[in-house]
Amino acid sequence: MTISRLDAAVITRQTFAASLFDTMATATAESGGPGVTRESYSPRETLAHDLIAKTGAALGLEVAQDFAANTYVTLAGTDRSAAPVVIGSHLDSVQNGGNFDGYAGVVAGMVALAAMTDSRWRPTRDIRVMGIRAEESAWFGVSYIGSRSALGQLPNGALETATRADTGRTLADHMRDCGGDPDAIAANKIYLDPAHLHAYLELHIEQGPVLHNEKIPVGIVTGIRGNFRCPDAHVSGEYSHCGGVPRAYRRDAVMAASEFVSSLDALWTASEDNGQDMAVTVGKFFTDSDTHAMTKISGDVRFSLDVRTLDPTFLAELETQVIDLAADIAKRRDISFDLGSITHAQIGVIDPSIQAALTDGATVLDIPARAIASGAAHDAAAFAAAGVPTAMIFIRNDKGSHNPDEAMELDDFMQGTRILTRWLAQNT
Amino acid sequence: MTISRLDAAVITRQTFAASLFDTMATATAESGGPGVTRESYSPRETLAHDLIAKTGAALGLEVAQDFAANTYVTLAGTDRSAAPVVIGSHLDSVQNGGNFDGYAGVVAGMVALAAMTDSRWRPTRDIRVMGIRAEESAWFGVSYIGSRSALGQLPNGALETATRADTGRTLADHMRDCGGDPDAIAANKIYLDPAHLHAYLELHIEQGPVLHNEKIPVGIVTGIRGNFRCPDAHVSGEYSHCGGVPRAYRRDAVMAASEFVSSLDALWTASEDNGQDMAVTVGKFFTDSDTHAMTKISGDVRFSLDVRTLDPTFLAELETQVIDLAADIAKRRDISFDLGSITHAQIGVIDPSIQAALTDGATVLDIPARAIASGAAHDAAAFAAAGVPTAMIFIRNDKGSHNPDEAMELDDFMQGTRILTRWLAQNT
Repeated sequence: MTISRLDAAVITRQTFAASLFDTMATATAESGGPGVTRESYSPRETLAHDLIAKTGAALGLEVAQDFAANTYVTLAGTDRSAAPVVIGSHLDSVQNGGNFDGYAGVVAGMVALAAMTDSRWRPTRDIRVMGIRAEESAWFGVSYIGSRSALGQLPNGALETATRADTGRTLADHMRDCGGDPDAIAANKIYLDPAHLHAYLELHIEQGPVLHNEKIPVGIVTGIRGNFRCPDAHVSGEYSHCGGVPRAYRRDAVMAASEFVSSLDALWTASEDNGQDMAVTVGKFFTDSDTHAMTKISGDVRFSLDVRTLDPTFLAELETQVIDLAADIAKRRDISFDLGSITHAQIGVIDPSIQAALTDGATVLDIPARAIASGAAHDAAAFAAAGVPTAMIFIRNDKGSHNPDEAMELDDFMQGTRILTRWLAQNT
Repeated sequence: MTISRLDAAVITRQTFAASLFDTMATATAESGGPGVTRESYSPRETLAHDLIAKTGAALGLEVAQDFAANTYVTLAGTDRSAAPVVIGSHLDSVQNGGNFDGYAGVVAGMVALAAMTDSRWRPTRDIRVMGIRAEESAWFGVSYIGSRSALGQLPNGALETATRADTGRTLADHMRDCGGDPDAIAANKIYLDPAHLHAYLELHIEQGPVLHNEKIPVGIVTGIRGNFRCPDAHVSGEYSHCGGVPRAYRRDAVMAASEFVSSLDALWTASEDNGQDMAVTVGKFFTDSDTHAMTKISGDVRFSLDVRTLDPTFLAELETQVIDLAADIAKRRDISFDLGSITHAQIGVIDPSIQAALTDGATVLDIPARAIASGAAHDAAAFAAAGVPTAMIFIRNDKGSHNPDEAMELDDFMQGTRILTRWLAQNT
């Protein structure tokens, strides 16, 4: 059995992939609305897991579920005691999301296993395709719940304190409803020992426009940005009549917050000019609709902040700069500048040798690919944070993610899956 | 009869002034809420007019009402054909407003007439105290309705197109309810011929903190700022996932709008450094609460803009600069920048000789006073725009206006009224 025949088997499985995508889109379509909705730990998310389990069983593969109700489809290796490779991604989606975000990574793993089965390819170590629960933080306000639970890394207390946005019920309750065992997680049981994993690979649609605009089907990820976030920052000045109050007496919250945002924009430009990766997003910025008026100097602005970079040292520096900037503006403008609670997500370090091997694979297979940073977070970051050698493949996608219009071409998906399968053939 | 005895008569009328303020505060108190509410063309505004009319009649003065239902209390001059002087201000208020904003100017006129009556002072020309309707634009979205109607300057169509914010009924309907005759206004009848007015003077609380902070009881106004306004500007970019989209591909509405606001702030600083009067206020600035999210690049910002200055040439220049700035940002950031409809208010030019005479009066009476620009609009601006020689006196006030906490001291009010009365004695 040669790698080129395995590659041909992957290509043959394109209709299998198309069918998996279509079946899922129909099964988890949002009724009366566009796109799909697979709430974290919901019956619709479970439908998705059932589809993967059923497909794995039909291929004659081992099917399992861990205590966080993640699904595993395993092609057994000749040495069952060797550290397995996990190919994973998440099966939940945002409200009215797209079908490919997350799911494409699981389908890629299933195509690889199907092609190996078709060609009677027998790896040395186990290859486990993992359908992951609850990656999207939109539902419980906590990210990577499924992967971190499996790795024994779920933050203490999240099972009981995190509640789902739409139901108000706890994570533990929802997990139990889906056949999970939150008590096992609370008791610190570990299903996937990070020290006993050979590697974690994840294929995912690109959530930005870079590959699309550059007409390149595949991206080989160089790193996953970490971030710090201020979900609810508050600038508080003083309301007063805009006609009566001279500049020197104003305590204008809009002027202060705008200066803050523009200063971060300038800092970003300067960093890019220096070749330093970063991104700044202020997704929310609003005066108080009950109080604001055209002729009133604003006394209140609330805003959110998300600052990301691939460089851990720079991330810490940026946080200090942001805090100093807020303090400086507060002092100069005689306003109060409260950044609120600051949350942190670690940078996901990509294993350089896997990244290099994937790049080589693309070259050998004559598939155009480029190095690309992952601005968004992924389960891969949870595996990387746990010390597992980790890599990611991005697939070109036109319309962004977290919306029903995401537009991945099946041909591009198959190119990425070929690169993934080739790596598996050479490393398991 | 000497001017100093008339001044003594003014001082004697302090309790009369106190009583007028107290009676009005009680009569137009907002039930269940702080402050007063005298909606434009409402029964509560009419209560205020009735109080002035009744007070004028009790002093033995002529009382009249024009077809816009403004109230006049007139001390007849020896030459009834001479152009009269009008001492006016408005009797309406914003919702939960303060008792002094507007009303103080009418009380000042009533005190002057009462003191003249007490001292049998007989002017050459009529002195008319005018209680003005509907100055506050909060109610009908149109300012100076009462004064402009009397002067024959109400914009065409306003009677039928302007509707009151709380009732949705037309200005004409509300005016009729209050005893006005909107048909006469629609037929272009003029009650106060601007060419036959000797002068218009208005005393008003300062709506800013300058006199309070400088511990000066009285301000002699140098000019009333004109403005242009964008009540509903809209920056429209593109929503996308904040992790996936690099800087070059972003069309971020918050970044664009913040740059706009910060640039205007910088322009303001530069203008002040050049000695040019101006003010910029962005009272509203908000992303869409149904769509925005911490991890989403914002595709929409709506904001309001109010730009003011005392200099007519500079006002026109500023409008061009603002339009150019919006266009430049739109182009650079590939977003759409719609300033919406732009409204304009003319600059109110203060008559330099009246201003100088009021300043002299303060000096002679040993009342601390300083020159001060009026940042806010007043009925005086409507008289000035109609070509009537116009002046204003400001009274120190601690807590701003358009709120129930405005804090004018009666002693300060009396100082301003003495300056006003002295001017009347010398010029009527």
